[in-house]
Amino acid sequence: MSTTSTHETQIISDPDVPLVRIIREFDAPPAKVFRAHTDPGLVAQWTGPRSLEMQIEHYDCRTGGSYRYVMTRDGDEFGFHGCFHEVRPAEVIVQTFTFEGQPDSVALERMVFEDLGDGRTRLTGTSLVDSFEGRDAFVASGMEQGVREGYERLDELLAR
Amino acid sequence: MSTTSTHETQIISDPDVPLVRIIREFDAPPAKVFRAHTDPGLVAQWTGPRSLEMQIEHYDCRTGGSYRYVMTRDGDEFGFHGCFHEVRPAEVIVQTFTFEGQPDSVALERMVFEDLGDGRTRLTGTSLVDSFEGRDAFVASGMEQGVREGYERLDELLAR
Repeated sequence: MSTTSTHETQIISDPDVPLVRIIREFDAPPAKVFRAHTDPGLVAQWTGPRSLEMQIEHYDCRTGGSYRYVMTRDGDEFGFHGCFHEVRPAEVIVQTFTFEGQPDSVALERMVFEDLGDGRTRLTGTSLVDSFEGRDAFVASGMEQGVREGYERLDELLAR
Repeated sequence: MSTTSTHETQIISDPDVPLVRIIREFDAPPAKVFRAHTDPGLVAQWTGPRSLEMQIEHYDCRTGGSYRYVMTRDGDEFGFHGCFHEVRPAEVIVQTFTFEGQPDSVALERMVFEDLGDGRTRLTGTSLVDSFEGRDAFVASGMEQGVREGYERLDELLAR
């Protein structure tokens, strides 16, 4: 029997620097949550809201690698790309991120995988940009729903 | 006859976000200044203060590429690495940067090459980190002299 509990996703705008922090627990060990972030075949199964389909162009998740993918819905395409600054298995991923609709906006993202024991993981993601206006627009863009829904899909993937 | 004038290097700590801005003009067109930032054989000739020797491990300056180099002085070694988020010829380079002595500190850097006409370029570099303490420690670390001296060496390279 497998039970899937949905944990709360905390999304916190930092008061001092233009950074947003996303915290979420998962009922799976760090190595498994990490793999769901690095194996492109798994990444495509849960990233973003259910209404978008993710097509990965390349996803070379290692220190010095890069990625590009396209989200599609009803013929609309949204491209995203970045590079992987540092990838330490089951510990941390540091990467850049650009939505190609705003090509001059770049975020520096860090995902930390924390072992809570008992096969559980706390994932803390931070996204840093160069202005509070940009950070607040990102938070107001509806990303919240995409993040929450994506993590629900990740719960389902991890429970299989 | 070639004359080399030394332009002032402005180093400005942003009051609102943890970012430092470095502005410098060069008596060479953007394509030439850009090439001195992307061709590893040229990069190694001017980056940093004269007292350090730069040994490039790899320097793949294109969108999605990465780099690593080591600065040496009297047997001491200082490693640096990062990835290239976006490289647009003679326009912009966006990259990440880590000094390996502080492996969890990552800066998001942007270099903008602005054509001033008459074979002159204004280069504006920004470096964004996730705390004011980290930014202020970086500015106080003596990086200022390395930047000024490096740009004097770049003047000499561009005048050849």
